[in-house]
Amino acid sequence: MSTTTHAIAAPAPGAPLEQTTIQRRDLRPDDVLIDIAYAGICHSDIHQAQEDWGTAIFPMVPGHEIAGVVAAVGSNVTRYQVGDRVGVGCMVDSCGECEYCLAGTEQFCVKGNVQTYNGVGFDGENTYGGYSRQIVVKDAFVCRIPEGIELDVAAPLLCAGITTYSPLRQWGAGPGKKVAVVGLGGLGHMAVKLAVAMGAEVTVLSQSLKKQEDGKRLGATHYYATGDESTFDVLRGRFDLILNTVSAKLPVDAYLGLLRVGGAMVNVGAPGEPLSYNAFSLIGGNKTLAGSMIGGIAETQEMLDFCAEHGIGAEIETISADQVNTAYERVANSDVRYRFVIDTATIGS
Amino acid sequence: MSTTTHAIAAPAPGAPLEQTTIQRRDLRPDDVLIDIAYAGICHSDIHQAQEDWGTAIFPMVPGHEIAGVVAAVGSNVTRYQVGDRVGVGCMVDSCGECEYCLAGTEQFCVKGNVQTYNGVGFDGENTYGGYSRQIVVKDAFVCRIPEGIELDVAAPLLCAGITTYSPLRQWGAGPGKKVAVVGLGGLGHMAVKLAVAMGAEVTVLSQSLKKQEDGKRLGATHYYATGDESTFDVLRGRFDLILNTVSAKLPVDAYLGLLRVGGAMVNVGAPGEPLSYNAFSLIGGNKTLAGSMIGGIAETQEMLDFCAEHGIGAEIETISADQVNTAYERVANSDVRYRFVIDTATIGS
Repeated sequence: MSTTTHAIAAPAPGAPLEQTTIQRRDLRPDDVLIDIAYAGICHSDIHQAQEDWGTAIFPMVPGHEIAGVVAAVGSNVTRYQVGDRVGVGCMVDSCGECEYCLAGTEQFCVKGNVQTYNGVGFDGENTYGGYSRQIVVKDAFVCRIPEGIELDVAAPLLCAGITTYSPLRQWGAGPGKKVAVVGLGGLGHMAVKLAVAMGAEVTVLSQSLKKQEDGKRLGATHYYATGDESTFDVLRGRFDLILNTVSAKLPVDAYLGLLRVGGAMVNVGAPGEPLSYNAFSLIGGNKTLAGSMIGGIAETQEMLDFCAEHGIGAEIETISADQVNTAYERVANSDVRYRFVIDTATIGS
Repeated sequence: MSTTTHAIAAPAPGAPLEQTTIQRRDLRPDDVLIDIAYAGICHSDIHQAQEDWGTAIFPMVPGHEIAGVVAAVGSNVTRYQVGDRVGVGCMVDSCGECEYCLAGTEQFCVKGNVQTYNGVGFDGENTYGGYSRQIVVKDAFVCRIPEGIELDVAAPLLCAGITTYSPLRQWGAGPGKKVAVVGLGGLGHMAVKLAVAMGAEVTVLSQSLKKQEDGKRLGATHYYATGDESTFDVLRGRFDLILNTVSAKLPVDAYLGLLRVGGAMVNVGAPGEPLSYNAFSLIGGNKTLAGSMIGGIAETQEMLDFCAEHGIGAEIETISADQVNTAYERVANSDVRYRFVIDTATIGS
């Protein structure tokens, strides 16, 4: 009882991705069948396909930045109709009953949320992600993509967008606030656009000035190279909020020194190895180091609505199915401005 | 133009403290002359007298937990009258004009606040602290000790009280919240009393169960030994807030594991050496690591009023002037329950 669809899969850890077919379940009463139009390539897809983050499930169909159109709905679905423009992010299910689910933070579901791919559903079936022509998702985990955002530039919002939107909102990015974004990559370029739209004054802190023109074009007021040590003197005590989007082992104390009294540095990127800090760097100015993990479904919808209102999409490079392995290499080398998006119509054709 | 008063001073770094006399300035129009009744011994007094924290000023008269009675006021002082019960904490002046002073956070004054001792006033004169019979302080840095708190148990509130009150308030300790206090010493025992009075459910995390009875008596509901590794399993995901009052090099990731989603660990104690953490410990539950440094003057008054309302004072052991060096040794050995307070009437007598 299932439908066959074309997909791109990693057959084994670190192996090149290849085209294949997979099964999608028949619609349950609360399911939505989506014809996927575009799927973003998130750096975490590569980590998981390489099994960098612990045991993974293979074959793996990555992809949790999904934009498409509703092709069919289950008998109980009232929120969506055939033809609706929709998106799916990092999760496709959660218990729906625990305090975190009830609070709209399904990413922290006590039972564990079901990841869009490299996960196991509550039915015991492996999940397969967005590098595919179609996907079946429970309606509560489907978001609406408002008119005014094209599907291709919307796809990356489902992970890179919400991952940066949530901490920017949580930590008060807005008018009168000075926000620094560390790293101008897939996450960082979204953080710049979003923080600017929220009304903050945005500074990019990047290793070099290589992408300075882009940063300014995206709305940043200032752009500094962290490879230049004087940056840490010049900007001392400057920021209300630093959003760190890179996974390098940063000198945490140096970055905390860039915060104003009461300021916060929030990490959405993280290295595998431990970081070091001096507690006085926090105490000396009532400062905060925090982490943030994606965002809940309601907040993801809020983010999509915000992006539509402010004309925000990701900066993308669209590729076809046969370019995915090359794209993975380029992402690993930070050679993309700023997100690859797979045109899923090219899968299996 | 000054008055001679008896004091206890460290003549040189690490030297035994000895009795001496010092000069207090004649009253300026906005000054208050205080007959000190009691002065608490804070662990930071010992660090500074030993010059552990960088170059210090000698002779040094420590003491920033001061309780006493107004003996005279300058011509412009309207807030205080002779006979008023008052306290002085860690600061005796600040610029009064910067954004932090205007926000009531004088501890972060851009010009630098003037420390009660081991500091230099804006007049260029060294400051001498509370181990003394009298002190002259600008009225804006004097707090009122409400009726209902004895002066001896009030003295430690001026540092240990505000240092724990401020982060407990800032980070939402209150009804329905589970608060852990790490360490049951001078700061920790105040944190327990205050958090309990705020309505939180309080757990003490101490190296051993040695002080368990005290902890329960002070109001803690639970008491766990961190020397027992199973504690970190049993309490996993338990707390909304962890207030760390110790200066040991804690295993930060293990403590972050004790926090609920969205929880915060706030440090008021800190080791000199760097701490290590894994960013995923923060990201995995939108968690926060923060620091907090004493509190502003208005908040110190609020804390004193709160303590009076709830019948809270420090747990003290009162000593005479000739016991100070022994007390220093005992504090260094964590052998005090929970604060030494010098009866300043014994100085010079």
